Amino acid sequence: MFESAELGHKIDQATYDKEVPKLREALLQAQIDLAKTAKFPVIILVSGLDGAGRGETVNLLNEWMDPRFLQTHGMGKPSDEERDRPMMWRFWRELPPKGKIGIFLGSWYTWPIIDRVHGRMSSADLDQSLERAKRMENMLISEGALIIKFWLHLSKEKQHNRLKGLENTPKTRWRVTKRDWSHYKLYDKFSAVHESVIRHTSTAQSPWIIVEGFDTYYRNLTVGRMLLAALRKRLDEADKLPADTTVAPPLLPSIDHLNILKTLDLTHKIGKNEFEKALEKYQGKLALLTRTKPFKKYSVIVVFEGNDAAGKGGAIRRVTGALDARYFNIIPVAAPTEEERAQPYLWRFWRHIPRRGRVTIFDRSWYGRVLVERVEKFCSEADWMRAYSEINDFEAQLVRHNIIVVKFWLSISKEEQLKRFKEREAVPFKNYKITADDWRNREKWDEYEQAVSDMVDRTSTKIAPWTLVEANDKDFARIKILKTLCEQIEAMLKKNRIAIG
Amino acid sequence: MFESAELGHKIDQATYDKEVPKLREALLQAQIDLAKTAKFPVIILVSGLDGAGRGETVNLLNEWMDPRFLQTHGMGKPSDEERDRPMMWRFWRELPPKGKIGIFLGSWYTWPIIDRVHGRMSSADLDQSLERAKRMENMLISEGALIIKFWLHLSKEKQHNRLKGLENTPKTRWRVTKRDWSHYKLYDKFSAVHESVIRHTSTAQSPWIIVEGFDTYYRNLTVGRMLLAALRKRLDEADKLPADTTVAPPLLPSIDHLNILKTLDLTHKIGKNEFEKALEKYQGKLALLTRTKPFKKYSVIVVFEGNDAAGKGGAIRRVTGALDARYFNIIPVAAPTEEERAQPYLWRFWRHIPRRGRVTIFDRSWYGRVLVERVEKFCSEADWMRAYSEINDFEAQLVRHNIIVVKFWLSISKEEQLKRFKEREAVPFKNYKITADDWRNREKWDEYEQAVSDMVDRTSTKIAPWTLVEANDKDFARIKILKTLCEQIEAMLKKNRIAIG
Repeated sequence: MFESAELGHKIDQATYDKEVPKLREALLQAQIDLAKTAKFPVIILVSGLDGAGRGETVNLLNEWMDPRFLQTHGMGKPSDEERDRPMMWRFWRELPPKGKIGIFLGSWYTWPIIDRVHGRMSSADLDQSLERAKRMENMLISEGALIIKFWLHLSKEKQHNRLKGLENTPKTRWRVTKRDWSHYKLYDKFSAVHESVIRHTSTAQSPWIIVEGFDTYYRNLTVGRMLLAALRKRLDEADKLPADTTVAPPLLPSIDHLNILKTLDLTHKIGKNEFEKALEKYQGKLALLTRTKPFKKYSVIVVFEGNDAAGKGGAIRRVTGALDARYFNIIPVAAPTEEERAQPYLWRFWRHIPRRGRVTIFDRSWYGRVLVERVEKFCSEADWMRAYSEINDFEAQLVRHNIIVVKFWLSISKEEQLKRFKEREAVPFKNYKITADDWRNREKWDEYEQAVSDMVDRTSTKIAPWTLVEANDKDFARIKILKTLCEQIEAMLKKNRIAIG
Repeated sequence: MFESAELGHKIDQATYDKEVPKLREALLQAQIDLAKTAKFPVIILVSGLDGAGRGETVNLLNEWMDPRFLQTHGMGKPSDEERDRPMMWRFWRELPPKGKIGIFLGSWYTWPIIDRVHGRMSSADLDQSLERAKRMENMLISEGALIIKFWLHLSKEKQHNRLKGLENTPKTRWRVTKRDWSHYKLYDKFSAVHESVIRHTSTAQSPWIIVEGFDTYYRNLTVGRMLLAALRKRLDEADKLPADTTVAPPLLPSIDHLNILKTLDLTHKIGKNEFEKALEKYQGKLALLTRTKPFKKYSVIVVFEGNDAAGKGGAIRRVTGALDARYFNIIPVAAPTEEERAQPYLWRFWRHIPRRGRVTIFDRSWYGRVLVERVEKFCSEADWMRAYSEINDFEAQLVRHNIIVVKFWLSISKEEQLKRFKEREAVPFKNYKITADDWRNREKWDEYEQAVSDMVDRTSTKIAPWTLVEANDKDFARIKILKTLCEQIEAMLKKNRIAIG
């Protein structure tokens, strides 16, 4: 795998001096074109061996290009705010927007590699984590990102020479740390893990570019040219990209017209007295659950989706009524802002992932992608088709990080909706809630029903199941929601108590 | 000061039950109007004594209003990312945008009060910190924010009763902490400090509203009504606010037409050889300074302002050439984004304040307010007039937090600018840099010169001085910038070394 990168590649200074000015100008021009069109972001990963020139390469790119439209992220020790969220959160928050370049020194591969070499992670776990990284990259690429991955390599002998060389020069001595030497001693182990990483994560769309790191001129020129070629190709292709490349079989409605929503018994009701009693019971329970000490290690994300006028707002208020206002947060999801539109669609949800011990409620959510965006054709079929698995990946990351993900679909009948729309229009105090959009959506009732049915089939997982809520009776819906939420939090706390004890 | 709040105010349940539904509806309506017009943000501070019902009040507001357009912030222990920035950073990052309500439980008063009571802060220091808080609030109000400050009070006897009462109820026992009792023992001390805080920071535009906290009905109804009145008044006045209320004397140019820029000797030059030597020297020095251990406790903010085509980009690259790409960040300041426009104008700069050990370079900055926004009349005279002192306050906060603030104005002559504009137009590779705006700005040369002169006079402070850079010769400018930067960092490191040693 590293054969070509151990040949002792070299470039003489004369060639280098001749080539560099042209290269720099072309790189700068590519960067200007990128900023002007602002059609896609560029993510550059710089990985590889200690002493192979990762830091120098990053500094070089900052020197050759316009550093104002470039941002470098040294992914060192995570902050406490970062440790409170899934590992990928710190990358999401640093993703470059369209038109800009983000360079990551140390990537989502760094920690899994180190953990594997030190035996803190099994080979199977590593493969799993690489698989996740690959899926993440695929998602970014589908969202338009250009990902360029550099791997700087050195033979064992050359690594030794290089660390010694740095150490013997007073100006660079500080750069060699004990950690570098202890890694050197593990060269063969690292090499094996590196090979596995490269093998698993070199894809057609974002292959690793392996560069021998010993000779500075060779390394610089190679990195510069590769980067230029990648930028240029993508810039020149930007206009002729096929808009929709999916060849997936269309999702047809079931031929007997039965779907999961139609099986709901919307006549479920609860009496006033019973409701008051149950409300007190489950609000009390929820209040206690979220105030226990073990809960400080968890957080909760609640997703509310449902028909227009299904009573999401009222249900949310019954939930928050049991919570301490300091520890919950509600995110009403409307049209994305300008900053959000410059990012992959999940970005606007990642930014609201709660710290531990907190509850975040999404009033509508990332499922907009496979509901309104699908039905109204705000995105292509390819986009919403891939969204199912991207969303499952996203939620799996949350759950792995002790975030309890609870998802509700509030379902009402078409007649009940009509009744509520008319009521809302009649009450001055409520008529802000009803818009022309609502009436338009209603005309597409069947299409939405199909979209919901597909969504449930494809994203109701064991780790983050959908709960369908019969919401013709508002009180019934509220109790079912509170009860489900309590049960799911309790189950997670219990499960881990056993696992720990 | 607390006389009226120790009278034993009470409301009977019948009155409460009668009043609440109307009040809730009116609050909800006010909230809807606020969201619809989205003309200003609402900041609610809830302060006061332990056990006086601060938490309950916040939860109540969440229950009475639509929690989806409300966000509560319990300002507890700061995170490491917050501790790395000036104290106010954590409030800035949580400020509600226009149209929304932010409730702060624990405010910018909390920590100064506690520090004063425990003797960690002198009375003079407290006054200073209150003065700063007041200035901050004034700024927010001038930017359009509605600030409502509730102070929940209890007499000493009532506080005792209340803590005992909470403790004796199994359901609320967990809420009383040791800290509460130790604060109770300090009742008189707290009371004295509280009085001082309220006296200093009750202003005409944001007075403290002192509410007796013992009787829940009285407290709830008072808070609800006061809040409603404040919201309603501001909403109804929103349309008839005078656009520009300044009566400041106009800033006239000096009658002999001499100004600070005209005194610069723009013929300063440096030879090629001398430049190369000086460049190596100061880049080397800067590289070392920012890599020393003591630097980890500091950060640097460099502001670049200057005439169009004065060479900011080139100068910035000479600075970053000496820095490790992982530890610097360049913020090119262009038009604000949608999210930034929904906030006070300094918000977009606060979000980029660096962590310790880092360098952030602003390519144009908050000074846009008193330069382009003044000259092009993007803001009112009142707005840019108050900006001078707001900016000084802002920079003082940075400096107090060990951030070294270095500000450069790059000055070129009108003839030199014309030459550079023409050059830029001629070189395909550079012509993206020259726009119609540049030519338009040039026509207002004298007005900009006046604005720069006023800016320097009003914002060049001992703690954050302006350095005027003669930039007709690019190399001369680059060296002066590098040298100044080194000197200012060195001076700060040295000053504190002596202070510590």
